[in-house]
Amino acid sequence: MREDYKRVALIGLGLIASSMAHAMRRAGMKSEIVGTARTEKTREEARQIGFCHRVVETAAEAVQGADLVVLAVPVGAMGQVAREIGPELAPGATVTDVGSVKRHVIRAVKPHLPDTVHFIPGHPLAGTEHSGPAAGFAELFDNRWCLLVPDEETDAEALARLTAYWQALGSNVETMDADHHDLVLAVTSHAPHLIAYTMVGVADDLERVTDSEVIKFSAAGFRDFTRIAASDPTMWRDVFLTNKDATLEILGRFTEELFALQRAIRTGDGEMLFDYFTRTRAIRRGIIEAGQDTPAPDFGRIRKT
Amino acid sequence: MREDYKRVALIGLGLIASSMAHAMRRAGMKSEIVGTARTEKTREEARQIGFCHRVVETAAEAVQGADLVVLAVPVGAMGQVAREIGPELAPGATVTDVGSVKRHVIRAVKPHLPDTVHFIPGHPLAGTEHSGPAAGFAELFDNRWCLLVPDEETDAEALARLTAYWQALGSNVETMDADHHDLVLAVTSHAPHLIAYTMVGVADDLERVTDSEVIKFSAAGFRDFTRIAASDPTMWRDVFLTNKDATLEILGRFTEELFALQRAIRTGDGEMLFDYFTRTRAIRRGIIEAGQDTPAPDFGRIRKT
Ligand SMILES: NC(=O)c1ccc[n+]([C@@H]2O[C@H](COP(=O)([O-])OP(=O)(O)OC[C@H]3O[C@@H](n4cnc5c(N)ncnc54)[C@H](OP(=O)(O)O)[C@@H]3O)[C@@H](O)[C@H]2O)c1
Ligand SMILES: NC(=O)c1ccc[n+]([C@@H]2O[C@H](COP(=O)([O-])OP(=O)(O)OC[C@H]3O[C@@H](n4cnc5c(N)ncnc54)[C@H](OP(=O)(O)O)[C@@H]3O)[C@@H](O)[C@H]2O)c1
Repeated sequence: MREDYKRVALIGLGLIASSMAHAMRRAGMKSEIVGTARTEKTREEARQIGFCHRVVETAAEAVQGADLVVLAVPVGAMGQVAREIGPELAPGATVTDVGSVKRHVIRAVKPHLPDTVHFIPGHPLAGTEHSGPAAGFAELFDNRWCLLVPDEETDAEALARLTAYWQALGSNVETMDADHHDLVLAVTSHAPHLIAYTMVGVADDLERVTDSEVIKFSAAGFRDFTRIAASDPTMWRDVFLTNKDATLEILGRFTEELFALQRAIRTGDGEMLFDYFTRTRAIRRGIIEAGQDTPAPDFGRIRKT
Repeated sequence: MREDYKRVALIGLGLIASSMAHAMRRAGMKSEIVGTARTEKTREEARQIGFCHRVVETAAEAVQGADLVVLAVPVGAMGQVAREIGPELAPGATVTDVGSVKRHVIRAVKPHLPDTVHFIPGHPLAGTEHSGPAAGFAELFDNRWCLLVPDEETDAEALARLTAYWQALGSNVETMDADHHDLVLAVTSHAPHLIAYTMVGVADDLERVTDSEVIKFSAAGFRDFTRIAASDPTMWRDVFLTNKDATLEILGRFTEELFALQRAIRTGDGEMLFDYFTRTRAIRRGIIEAGQDTPAPDFGRIRKT
């Protein structure tokens, strides 16, 4: 039995928050949705779209009487928002966040929250390369994982309620500790994003190959990197600065492997390359079997008739 | 006015050759399509699907009386196939290939061809991560580029005819010299593929993050790398071994940039990261404006209702 929150405060009204609001409505939740964002421009855009019941000026105002507060701002802004809302939180409220890094967010947010609230950090593993209030849609979390990061002191009932909430939004929920979260995400998200940004930057920098050639002939692999590297610069700057250690560790391993493959190319070691490329195929099969991607060729971009 | 080839011989019956056959039929070409592949298994599969008029046992047999011969085998096998068909080619025939590397193919193929044929190397920039005769479909080349690599001696009429052929298959055609082709493709395709293979290999290797976690939580960026890294191991081994210099040059540039970004992360230089990530967005916009990818979020994987 799901017990809907009475009032949900969304702090930040970008892709994630607006998608949550759309998904709450799709689920028929009875909660009042109150939202706020930093700039009047975004608040006004959110009002126009209408996914909140009320859009207010400040975070302090938004959390009044809310029994669920969702911090949906860039990771680097979480601490400041927490400081602003700390004194205003209703006793017994649950505070969660959707930040892509967990250890840093806990360190930045926790000191500002009163003991009377339940702080349960979270991270929905769902997103697109678009951002802002108009980018959201109800299906974003369907069949995606949402990771919650409780600790020993977390209230079981508050955790169960937040879990049911994310399930109603379409997610599968799992719990994990913060350090492991940050390492797993460094592998599955943060390092791949940095690598994609780097490759696109290299292409943009070359003198003997023009940007227009890169663009024209991108379909052979490169364009998938450009999609990843089109993600929001503020969000990603914050991710790398706040998940520094795990990201640098994975990038170190990556560089080692890349050198080994470069050496195989240089020395003409075809067997090593063949074996390596055969091994990586198995991972792809696993992802498709786990329902985390489509087996359609080229992501189903091409519509066969 | 398109003048259809009378008989087209497809040597190799994988993704590219089978897609060419489907596209020829879609275009209503009057050509007879004769195909062959290395193994009886593939030949039989192609017969079952029925995209060729005839499937024969050997390349030497397939090229008999053909006025267009298409080499659609892995780059490393082109030389041997050329040696096999050289003595059998009809005078005046056009020989082309679809290999992903051009300088090496020219060096390997040209010595085996008689002066009486027109050799015009080519490369359709279209593909998926699937391979084999069942992977082909008529739409593969639609709105994609096909690069042809004539030299000073190339017969203008033969070139015009091959250009019209690829256009009828759905492609836009451009000409380029072999060295420039290999450099452009190292940027837009070969380096990105090696990087994706490497990242997937790293994820598969880690002890503290399990494969099942990598698979489960892949939606945050990594899964796009796995699609690229699911491509055919033979094809890609050959590409790297035969486009060694350009690939290693681009990977060298990539490593330099990656080090600069790692340093920015380590020293907490948020401005450098923000500026870098802002610059790479422009390339993405260019690709979408050029019609080479969909602006739909997440490649349109998510169907909004
Ligand atoms: N996008 C993804 O793929 C994804 C996936 C999972 C998790 N996340 C995480 O979700 C969070 C939000 O991401 P998003 O994609 O929804 O971002 P977004 O679309 O860019 O929206 C960010 C929101 O935060 C507000 N904001 C920015 N800086 C602020 C500050 N200093 N103080 C107060 N509000 C501020 C913005 O308000 P203004 O518009 O008024 O500036 C905007 O409403 C981030 O922590 C991100 O790491 C993102
Ligand atoms: N896939 C792409 O994305 C893509 C895009 C553009 C260009 N290309 C290029 O197109 C060519 C073919 O690629 P594809 O994707 O069509 O490959 P594919 O689906 O793997 O098919 C390759 C074909 O070549 C035959 N073959 C393999 N080794 C051979 C050998 N030593 N001698 C004779 N025949 C041999 C195979 O026959 P069996 O099945 O009997 O072994 C098979 O019919 C490659 O040069 C590749 O670089 C590929």
